[in-house]
Amino acid sequence: MKRILVLGAGRTLPSLINYLATRADEMSWEVRVADISLQQVLQKIEGYSNVSASEFDIQLPEQREKEIVAADLVISLLPVRFHILAAKTCLKFKKHLLTASYVSDEMKAMDQQAKKNGVLLLNECGLDPGIDHMTAMAALDKIREEKGGSVDTFISYTGGLISPETDNNPWHYKFTWNPRNVVLAGKETAQFIRKGRYKYIPYHRVFTRLEPVHIEGYGDFQGYANRDSLKYRELYGLQNVETIMRSTLRRPGFCEAWNILVQLGITDDSYTLVGLDGLTYRDFINTFLYFHPTKSVEDKLCEYLKLDRHGEIMQKLIWLGIFEKTSIEMDKASPAMVLQKLLEQKWKLEPNDRDMIVMQHQIGYSMDNQYKKFKTSLVVIGDDIQHTAMSKTVGWPLAIAAKLILTGAINDTGVKVPVTPRYYQPIIKELETLGVKFIE
Amino acid sequence: MKRILVLGAGRTLPSLINYLATRADEMSWEVRVADISLQQVLQKIEGYSNVSASEFDIQLPEQREKEIVAADLVISLLPVRFHILAAKTCLKFKKHLLTASYVSDEMKAMDQQAKKNGVLLLNECGLDPGIDHMTAMAALDKIREEKGGSVDTFISYTGGLISPETDNNPWHYKFTWNPRNVVLAGKETAQFIRKGRYKYIPYHRVFTRLEPVHIEGYGDFQGYANRDSLKYRELYGLQNVETIMRSTLRRPGFCEAWNILVQLGITDDSYTLVGLDGLTYRDFINTFLYFHPTKSVEDKLCEYLKLDRHGEIMQKLIWLGIFEKTSIEMDKASPAMVLQKLLEQKWKLEPNDRDMIVMQHQIGYSMDNQYKKFKTSLVVIGDDIQHTAMSKTVGWPLAIAAKLILTGAINDTGVKVPVTPRYYQPIIKELETLGVKFIE
Repeated sequence: MKRILVLGAGRTLPSLINYLATRADEMSWEVRVADISLQQVLQKIEGYSNVSASEFDIQLPEQREKEIVAADLVISLLPVRFHILAAKTCLKFKKHLLTASYVSDEMKAMDQQAKKNGVLLLNECGLDPGIDHMTAMAALDKIREEKGGSVDTFISYTGGLISPETDNNPWHYKFTWNPRNVVLAGKETAQFIRKGRYKYIPYHRVFTRLEPVHIEGYGDFQGYANRDSLKYRELYGLQNVETIMRSTLRRPGFCEAWNILVQLGITDDSYTLVGLDGLTYRDFINTFLYFHPTKSVEDKLCEYLKLDRHGEIMQKLIWLGIFEKTSIEMDKASPAMVLQKLLEQKWKLEPNDRDMIVMQHQIGYSMDNQYKKFKTSLVVIGDDIQHTAMSKTVGWPLAIAAKLILTGAINDTGVKVPVTPRYYQPIIKELETLGVKFIE
Repeated sequence: MKRILVLGAGRTLPSLINYLATRADEMSWEVRVADISLQQVLQKIEGYSNVSASEFDIQLPEQREKEIVAADLVISLLPVRFHILAAKTCLKFKKHLLTASYVSDEMKAMDQQAKKNGVLLLNECGLDPGIDHMTAMAALDKIREEKGGSVDTFISYTGGLISPETDNNPWHYKFTWNPRNVVLAGKETAQFIRKGRYKYIPYHRVFTRLEPVHIEGYGDFQGYANRDSLKYRELYGLQNVETIMRSTLRRPGFCEAWNILVQLGITDDSYTLVGLDGLTYRDFINTFLYFHPTKSVEDKLCEYLKLDRHGEIMQKLIWLGIFEKTSIEMDKASPAMVLQKLLEQKWKLEPNDRDMIVMQHQIGYSMDNQYKKFKTSLVVIGDDIQHTAMSKTVGWPLAIAAKLILTGAINDTGVKVPVTPRYYQPIIKELETLGVKFIE
């Protein structure tokens, strides 16, 4: 028997645990889920008789060591800041660790020690980062190695959205990821290369520089530049690429309306509002507008940001409830926290909702004196609000990697990211059998 | 003989040293100036036979202690971050310290120790902060105490500009303060109260929310909200004020054009540009614009930010040289650093230039069932590019305070700011004799 320890019982768990539990007997796995809330674990593992639960606080060394020492492989679904604690303990007891988060500098620094101890610390093995890396590298390697092509353009789009059948609000958006991350999305200056030229977009302009994307059978989307795309040159072996850009997808109309919230300054998380007590959402919006003795908040906003009073952007803002005289009921909060509270009510997934993951890679390359374009797209729809597309696409790559490691199909050490064929080939292959399949 | 030690031989020194040197024999003062560059000290004290020079590094404890132990009073004109080192040594040897900088939290924490040691650490005793506090408090105290008025509005404007006779560029602006601070001005969210309502303006909107100001004999200005005005409520005893706002003044047209630089993102100091080597200013601007195969940088900018190709804003931008094919010649720099380099060439004070300080307080109050308005303005013109209006209005309040302390007219201890009559009355009175006089 090999024991797989899963840390964290959040949104990603359901599909991961389903994969592991349904294969546990056959594979001789013991599966255990540990979280700070035992109740949450029990709720999420209900129906799986072969999965055990543990109440545990990663920050308490005794509890952390007790769980990790008894495992053969650890999967951390905890918030990013806790991965390092898990990694240190995994190094100590020579256990492999898998995460779906970006490699932090602290994690990177453990590479030598991990190699010395025979431990694999595999990161960025979820959706984004994860499936994006694996499918990009599979496509790039095929073009470069099999076809001998020379890649000059790499553009990649990813979006976590709502499935068309349950898309019933004017923003065409609901929260399927961490709401705080959605509210703060794009905060860094976007950096990319376009036709050989470095391009920088400051946060307050990101949602005005949009690219149209069409996905067969799923309609139109718009992409906005996603933070630092430059670092992907080295990771993907694209040092001399002419165009490289990673984007986030939304439905048309979303970004124009979201930009109004950015322009007002209410996505700001850097300071605490004074005098919030007793304010309504309408007062809150007024706080970011100039004073006028008689004009309405709506009229001031339209004048200030040059909006059509009866246009689609205003319709979206009105639907959100930002002009309503409803009390906020928060004492101390940043503007972003107030906005998040409102959005969590409006963009909540309903019991029958299904989410949708969309990803597209566009690659341009030269081969045999011809310029060619390659496009590959993925659409995954959630089964329900537990087994979301998000849960499947983040959880399954981790689960598959765990299987490959425990069966010895992958035998590696050090701090790694799944950008080499030994990882991406078997993981993509099995994801396809689970219905996560790119269409070229 | 009492020794006054002045730390730092920067822009503020000339008027301060002139005040001290011309009174030194009469007052029995020894005046000494210490700076990391002996040459700079010698240049600035040329012609004053009774001022001594010292080469010294505040960061070296031995040099710091040697200079401070021999002084009776220390005036620090050093960059803000060094005041704490001076203050600690002053506490140790029981010497008074004067600065023109905001009280830091670290400085504030020394209050008890300063009182115990009989030491005065007087801060915010320059122009802004300094003269602004003193003249605001003089006006407010007069309204409240002498007239029994109840203040509901306090608005204060300050600008460091160029004198009308030497104002010969389309921005009507040259650098008379630290260029880096000018480039990064307004970076915090502006916070103030207007008619009883809290108002917040994010950085990327600050230069679009302008207030017109007229000063008799000096024409029109525009004010933009200056950072956190809320904290002045407590300092000025205005806890229940309906309107409080501090603004920075520029000539009309400046802010609209500056806003374009903000919108592009080139006032950002938070990251280092990649691929700067070999770029021209034109390339640099293009880096912040979308890609287009044929359109010119000028046309793209006008389209992107909705500018009139032949309007005044474009005239200002063209004059700055941002479209020129001149090499930047910087390797590693933030966008703000590149912009600063360009501006330092264009907004440089010429030998015959004279700077100008403008300040205006507007106070609204009720008295005897009547609502009254009070307005008081200051304009100071520099004598030349050494004895600038800036040097006079920052240096003289410090010099006068030093005299008051050394003659025993002010006898105080602890960490203080000159907002009480014992400070502002004699300092304002003497500033008036020097030509720094508010007109009501």
